[in-house]
Amino acid sequence: MQWNIQALVKRFNGKLFNSGYELLDDHHVDHLCTLTAGKPGGIGFLHHPKYSVELYQTQASLVLVPEDFRPTQPAAAILMGVAHPYRCFALLMEEINHSRMDAKVGVELPAYMGQQVVIGANSYRGAFSYIGNHVVIGDNVKIYPQVYIGDHVTIGSDTLLYSGVKVADYTVIGRRCILYPGAVIGSGGFGFFTNADQSYQRIPSIGNVVLADDVEIGANATVDAATIGQTSIGQGTKIDNLVQVAHNVEIGKHTGIAAQAGIAGSTKIGAYCRLGGQIGIAGHLELGDQVTALGRAGITRSFKKGQVTLSGTPAFEHSKFLACYAQFKKFASSRRKDI
Amino acid sequence: MQWNIQALVKRFNGKLFNSGYELLDDHHVDHLCTLTAGKPGGIGFLHHPKYSVELYQTQASLVLVPEDFRPTQPAAAILMGVAHPYRCFALLMEEINHSRMDAKVGVELPAYMGQQVVIGANSYRGAFSYIGNHVVIGDNVKIYPQVYIGDHVTIGSDTLLYSGVKVADYTVIGRRCILYPGAVIGSGGFGFFTNADQSYQRIPSIGNVVLADDVEIGANATVDAATIGQTSIGQGTKIDNLVQVAHNVEIGKHTGIAAQAGIAGSTKIGAYCRLGGQIGIAGHLELGDQVTALGRAGITRSFKKGQVTLSGTPAFEHSKFLACYAQFKKFASSRRKDI
Amino acid sequence: MQWNIQALVKRFNGKLFNSGYELLDDHHVDHLCTLTAGKPGGIGFLHHPKYSVELYQTQASLVLVPEDFRPTQPAAAILMGVAHPYRCFALLMEEINHSRMDAKVGVELPAYMGQQVVIGANSYRGAFSYIGNHVVIGDNVKIYPQVYIGDHVTIGSDTLLYSGVKVADYTVIGRRCILYPGAVIGSGGFGFFTNADQSYQRIPSIGNVVLADDVEIGANATVDAATIGQTSIGQGTKIDNLVQVAHNVEIGKHTGIAAQAGIAGSTKIGAYCRLGGQIGIAGHLELGDQVTALGRAGITRSFKKGQVTLSGTPAFEHSKFLACYAQFKKFASSRRKDI
Repeated sequence: MQWNIQALVKRFNGKLFNSGYELLDDHHVDHLCTLTAGKPGGIGFLHHPKYSVELYQTQASLVLVPEDFRPTQPAAAILMGVAHPYRCFALLMEEINHSRMDAKVGVELPAYMGQQVVIGANSYRGAFSYIGNHVVIGDNVKIYPQVYIGDHVTIGSDTLLYSGVKVADYTVIGRRCILYPGAVIGSGGFGFFTNADQSYQRIPSIGNVVLADDVEIGANATVDAATIGQTSIGQGTKIDNLVQVAHNVEIGKHTGIAAQAGIAGSTKIGAYCRLGGQIGIAGHLELGDQVTALGRAGITRSFKKGQVTLSGTPAFEHSKFLACYAQFKKFASSRRKDI
Repeated sequence: MQWNIQALVKRFNGKLFNSGYELLDDHHVDHLCTLTAGKPGGIGFLHHPKYSVELYQTQASLVLVPEDFRPTQPAAAILMGVAHPYRCFALLMEEINHSRMDAKVGVELPAYMGQQVVIGANSYRGAFSYIGNHVVIGDNVKIYPQVYIGDHVTIGSDTLLYSGVKVADYTVIGRRCILYPGAVIGSGGFGFFTNADQSYQRIPSIGNVVLADDVEIGANATVDAATIGQTSIGQGTKIDNLVQVAHNVEIGKHTGIAAQAGIAGSTKIGAYCRLGGQIGIAGHLELGDQVTALGRAGITRSFKKGQVTLSGTPAFEHSKFLACYAQFKKFASSRRKDI
Repeated sequence: MQWNIQALVKRFNGKLFNSGYELLDDHHVDHLCTLTAGKPGGIGFLHHPKYSVELYQTQASLVLVPEDFRPTQPAAAILMGVAHPYRCFALLMEEINHSRMDAKVGVELPAYMGQQVVIGANSYRGAFSYIGNHVVIGDNVKIYPQVYIGDHVTIGSDTLLYSGVKVADYTVIGRRCILYPGAVIGSGGFGFFTNADQSYQRIPSIGNVVLADDVEIGANATVDAATIGQTSIGQGTKIDNLVQVAHNVEIGKHTGIAAQAGIAGSTKIGAYCRLGGQIGIAGHLELGDQVTALGRAGITRSFKKGQVTLSGTPAFEHSKFLACYAQFKKFASSRRKDI
């Protein structure tokens, strides 16, 4: 890929710092780079002034810097001030991603497709991918090698399913979703009756999973089908690697859940929540909108909508938790006292 | 599917509440539903009287209710009192599941099969499934697409292996087991010698995994092969998604282990234990029968057979943990005191 | 396999205890076993004198014992004193493993291979394995069935990729690495901008993952690609099942990370660290060399190089944690006091 520097100035409403350069119309950059690994032709960005040493040493040709940044040393690179260097840079990253994806079109053989399957235009089916019966797939959907899609599944346009994703029968997936490698959508829920002899009698899952638009599910994460009804994940919600979402869980819009978190059965989570890595939430609870749980919190009761921030197991208000923990740590030096 | 209502009355020893209905011999229901999403032809159930508002509003045709339930309002649905509404309902769910499974028969091509493989009657091998050499598979085994089965594996009758399950060489799997998508059975154990230069020397695994009858292993869960000998999971034990069972672990019968739990190497767990989500158990320990560990407990010593319930890390008796934690939480208001 | 006993004496610099045996030149053992499951022809080992009862009862033909061990009862087996019985035994285990691996050569059909792929001698490609374009693979690499390898990937010689491993574009893998079933290398990182409306804007990953020589990645573990630059894992580092390594993490040489641990984005971990199961490390931290974190520790700040051992969440020095926790546990009996 190539980006004309003059065009980038216009696009990002940028301002060039090093007027000493004679910037020709055909001056361009051709790859993205970090400042430390920068090479001629590369474009990098200065995320924070504390990295400005790297800026003055980089061999990259162009660096996006905050518009209020003022260089204190000469730099070999052309510096372009923009409102949000990282966001501008991310747009270029996204262009690269898109160009890779657009190149994935057609079918690699062998690929398996059942009966009564509808697939939209511009889609990709990788080798050894499997699509069951009665499946409807939108335009521009990319199905990587070794993906499994069961029967009666619906997938919206522009959705990506990376290698080894497994989608069980009756799952509904929205548009522009991303399912990372090995994610499992719609596995059987973990629910049992206890028999008189204390053995288990499985409660089957005949419900499904519904992912709204713009949902992302991380690598090797698991989302179980509802016993009956739906396990649902709201629009724009992002779920990281190795997260467990149990049967009949409902998650609202634009919530983020970091790696290895686990949410037990039938729990409801609101919109705009931020749940840290390795948190756990017990079953049959409700978290309102905008709840934040810091990494490893263990949530054992419901919390209402609000800006509460949780820590600890069982979890409570983070600032209080820190105060308690500070006292707890003092025990080390007072351990001979009789408390 | 269709269920004749008169037949259901007999089967579940049920009692119809709404005698105003004239129930004809050919009156039937044809799908399962929740009360809130109920539609004509549907059968639902009332799990708990607190949901009785849903009962009076549902459009389902038939609702299973507790036999001692007395409606306080008219309901459009036919109400059938039964001893255990959810269990009766689950039997119908299981019928649906079975009918889906029974339809899976034969081989989808391409599928790979090694030499000296024996497969029983009525089995299914999905496309891109792989079976190595010297494998013995019982009747009615369903091998979904993209399953991997190594050499010298034995699988009992009526076992299900969902898509992307991986079964390593020499694994033994019982009858009526369910392996959910992406589960890995028999991966190499995590054991090393430390060399003089502090690098690691792997201890290979030449043992195997033995799953007894009626075992379930959740999606993307991992069970490592024994270094030598067996990693074994007893009859009827159910393991949830993303659980780690390390090399040489032995688990008894009818134990339940919830999602993301982890059991380190060579630990022995008894029968009828209940281990919550995200618990961890250190290596070389023993838990007796009927031990309960609540979610996120971190178990660092052995516990004998008994009705102990564990919490915290390191874990101890739950009721004591709660008392300690209640005191811990008071520190927030006393943090300026000198303890 | 067969091992001549006289040859083993020489190889391990061993000493036979039971001089009553007339050891013939063609005396050999032909399989490895535990003492309890020992059968004629088997070779076992005595790990610790506390298991010596098993030694006197075993039916194995040959047992490796510590060279300073003195039998107090007659044993049916030939006893061979060696410096490190388990290490010697593990060498024989490794031989078995190698012989299994050496037998894996050639291509099982169908297997998919893109354009401009170079594969070394003596390699194996299992059925339904997928290799993209512009891939370079060294000698003796074993690619099990259903492995996915994206474009522009490099894999060093003698590396094993077990079934269902997924390797994303641009990944670099060293020599003698082992990737266990279902491991995902190079998935997209979990990084987002928050838009003005509180929805998320993904930051794409255009970096990659670099695994040095002798790295092992456990079953269903996930290692995310760098946003830009590299997520890197140093030589000889061993990572267990279901571990999460986030984008831009850097891990030094010969570090061990046990199952279900999670390391958040951009954190740097030194060499020779020992990180227990289910530990969590927050993002943008630095752990120096030789840091030990016990199982379930939650690390929320950086720690310098040194022999520190961490416990708790937030984690601090283990011995202090134990002292604090001992006091915490006393609250159960003092809970009516006003602290």
